[in-house]
Amino acid sequence: MALSDLVRVERNEVGIATVLGILKQRLGERFQTGQAIREQHGHTTTYIPNQPPDGVAFVQTAGEVEDVVRACGEHRVPVIPFGVGTSLEGHVNAPGGGISVDTSQMNRVVAVHADDLDCTVEAGVTREQLNTHLRDTGLFFPIDPGANATLGGMAATRASGTNAVRYGTMRENVLALTAVMADGRSITTARRAKKTSAGYDLTRLLVGSEGTLGVITSVTLKLAGIPQAISGGVCPFPSVESACRAVIETIQMGIPVARIELVNQLQMRAMKTYNKLDYPESPCLFVEFHGSDAGVAEQAEMFGEIAAGQGGGPFLWTTVAEERTKLWKARHEAYWSAQTLRPGARGLSTDVCVPISRLAECIAETEADIARNGLVAPIVGHVGDGNFHVLVLMDVNDPKEIAASEAFVGRLNERAIAMDGTCTGEHGVGQGKIGFIEREHGAGADYMRMIKRALDPLNIMNPGKILPAGQDAGR
Amino acid sequence: MALSDLVRVERNEVGIATVLGILKQRLGERFQTGQAIREQHGHTTTYIPNQPPDGVAFVQTAGEVEDVVRACGEHRVPVIPFGVGTSLEGHVNAPGGGISVDTSQMNRVVAVHADDLDCTVEAGVTREQLNTHLRDTGLFFPIDPGANATLGGMAATRASGTNAVRYGTMRENVLALTAVMADGRSITTARRAKKTSAGYDLTRLLVGSEGTLGVITSVTLKLAGIPQAISGGVCPFPSVESACRAVIETIQMGIPVARIELVNQLQMRAMKTYNKLDYPESPCLFVEFHGSDAGVAEQAEMFGEIAAGQGGGPFLWTTVAEERTKLWKARHEAYWSAQTLRPGARGLSTDVCVPISRLAECIAETEADIARNGLVAPIVGHVGDGNFHVLVLMDVNDPKEIAASEAFVGRLNERAIAMDGTCTGEHGVGQGKIGFIEREHGAGADYMRMIKRALDPLNIMNPGKILPAGQDAGR
Repeated sequence: MALSDLVRVERNEVGIATVLGILKQRLGERFQTGQAIREQHGHTTTYIPNQPPDGVAFVQTAGEVEDVVRACGEHRVPVIPFGVGTSLEGHVNAPGGGISVDTSQMNRVVAVHADDLDCTVEAGVTREQLNTHLRDTGLFFPIDPGANATLGGMAATRASGTNAVRYGTMRENVLALTAVMADGRSITTARRAKKTSAGYDLTRLLVGSEGTLGVITSVTLKLAGIPQAISGGVCPFPSVESACRAVIETIQMGIPVARIELVNQLQMRAMKTYNKLDYPESPCLFVEFHGSDAGVAEQAEMFGEIAAGQGGGPFLWTTVAEERTKLWKARHEAYWSAQTLRPGARGLSTDVCVPISRLAECIAETEADIARNGLVAPIVGHVGDGNFHVLVLMDVNDPKEIAASEAFVGRLNERAIAMDGTCTGEHGVGQGKIGFIEREHGAGADYMRMIKRALDPLNIMNPGKILPAGQDAGR
Repeated sequence: MALSDLVRVERNEVGIATVLGILKQRLGERFQTGQAIREQHGHTTTYIPNQPPDGVAFVQTAGEVEDVVRACGEHRVPVIPFGVGTSLEGHVNAPGGGISVDTSQMNRVVAVHADDLDCTVEAGVTREQLNTHLRDTGLFFPIDPGANATLGGMAATRASGTNAVRYGTMRENVLALTAVMADGRSITTARRAKKTSAGYDLTRLLVGSEGTLGVITSVTLKLAGIPQAISGGVCPFPSVESACRAVIETIQMGIPVARIELVNQLQMRAMKTYNKLDYPESPCLFVEFHGSDAGVAEQAEMFGEIAAGQGGGPFLWTTVAEERTKLWKARHEAYWSAQTLRPGARGLSTDVCVPISRLAECIAETEADIARNGLVAPIVGHVGDGNFHVLVLMDVNDPKEIAASEAFVGRLNERAIAMDGTCTGEHGVGQGKIGFIEREHGAGADYMRMIKRALDPLNIMNPGKILPAGQDAGR
């Protein structure tokens, strides 16, 4: 997360000017170059400087995306896909300028195949829009990153969220997708069959590629049945370590927990005030079970026993929707409640993921690091997957605080990698984690570069993201 | 599956002679060139002619694999990975000769991380060996293709089996792998974290790549807890269609069925005789549920009601291990019992996969096709995933029968693709399905070629597999 790691991308002024003219003519009012719109499309939730694109194309069809990519390819101009701009690592910045392809008007639900538990949506459909659309089908799409992101963006960043421990991430839930590749051609990566062994897995190559290999224009998603019953509640623990041990035991027992979220002591303090939650100010697990009436009761009871065995509890659980909603509202508002811990500060959200056997150790070391360096940085985590977030509350006008936060995030990434983990479990690389790709992947990063070079030889697709400078610099 | 689709690979006689000398010196007795061993390593279970490699390297370490690949790269000689040779589509044939890399002596279980529910094994460990090793841990590896395949081979072909409906395929269960790439360098594709958004998904690019991008030398696998209780049984249905409707309803209700296997009428006839099963000679579903005592009873009861609603039943289920074992033994021996339907014939096993809403239609049309063409070809299927197998029993010495079988498989592939399905759900492409890759993937096949060319510019890695001739021919 060091600014010094940012990959420089040369501006091609002549090409940009030409493409601006072409797209203005092609898209009319749906091509915008006003400063406010451009800055909004270069908006990042990090402290990385805003690097706006030169124009924003509000595309409505895959054919229009093909046109934009072809024009940009011909004139060597960067293409930066944009959903709703909620990514966290500078994914939508335009370090060499170029064209932001805003997919928000590609928001049709193309098909729902209820019998097959799948659906196809255009890239700009948001997860809440999809779930509203599905309301009468008895089905839902379970992947829930904090924001109401677009499904194209979620696929591009390999997003996940609180339900991933049971339902998987975008990696497991994108059956197929269509994308416009760097040469301007569209491909559909797979059929709707639930499994296939027919050739290279282009679906999963594009999921998580952050627009660097193609612009995703539609996704075919697995859906889940809305569970017959849901139980859930909050369970306090004497320490992060005991909470983590309860998580491991729950997973090992094969209890099909749907959500199991750690909230550390500092974050609980924020939530008690902000959301008026009546729980002890100690590390807590927010837990939810999906299944039959009998199943969710049995699972909640089993979890309660596991928690008690680790010194946690009481585990008060309920199947009443209103009470659960209040809890999960508090969990989902953690970003906002945390801000109250240091009014006026900006929250920098970062994430890592480790094997769950290392989770307690990783969080404990991170808490000690935070304390040692005088940071205000609460922790929440999708701990069933070994994934946790730190929200560093900092004064972005104070270079010393930025430097301290950068250094902290660097140590966090190194710590996770050293524990056989990853520098990002669900946020993606973007610009923010680019300095850790070589460290995490070693020689693997070279093969990523070979793939990038083969599929995007002109380096027009979201340049300056994922892959650190090196052989590719300046191309 | 037409022989005319086979990709020709030129033999490089000078290079091969050189590499034979190098490897004999390097590996001594562990490098074999005898005809019987070479033919065994070119063995295919199809009617594609045996195309033996020129030598077989019995490697023991990843370093030795690197040496073999480097020697082959330097002298432009094909490298063909080999596990135990149970793949079904000619994957291990050597159309241009070259070196078979036999991984069967790389059979160490490197690590079992019980807390994390994962393990790392060398590529030559078989699934039964792994499950025997895990016996005391309370964990198991659920993916079960028919054969006792190596885990490296299963990863390379993206294998699955009867448990995939609940536990997923190799796509979902390989956390990371190491592979020797075409330039002779080893990479590890990912860390052990359960999820990651850190760069391109090299793991899933290599899973299913059938040795055409790299030689897999070890795999890190997700493990599952051995369920507390298992219930299961057999349920007869008046028709394939009613059985398929019961499957769809079961999946839609969110019943977490662990196995749901269709056996058609002809296959039931074979199993009644061969395995002395006392069930009606009608389409049947073999079903199994994994969970708690209460859960598996509840699930079995719910399934019984669904089956009755479709005119099926009685569904006799049990939690007694011995009785279930007898049933699943019969299911796993389907390949052998089917042979009794036409003694002396060779069974050609092929598979396709479609969205489950199209499954009944696809199987019904396929049964009609079989009848119309006078073939003897029973059907079994992992129908919870929409995947089914046809075993065509044919006289491999009769060119007319081969032609008729080829034509039948061609129609089957086309039928599946037309129903938004795939020409192979779990067997892979190898040589046998190579003629359908363009048909299934359209422009996507071009991007697969670009990736192949970027990662294996000399086309030494298992040439003549997956990708049809075209721009790559003769390279």
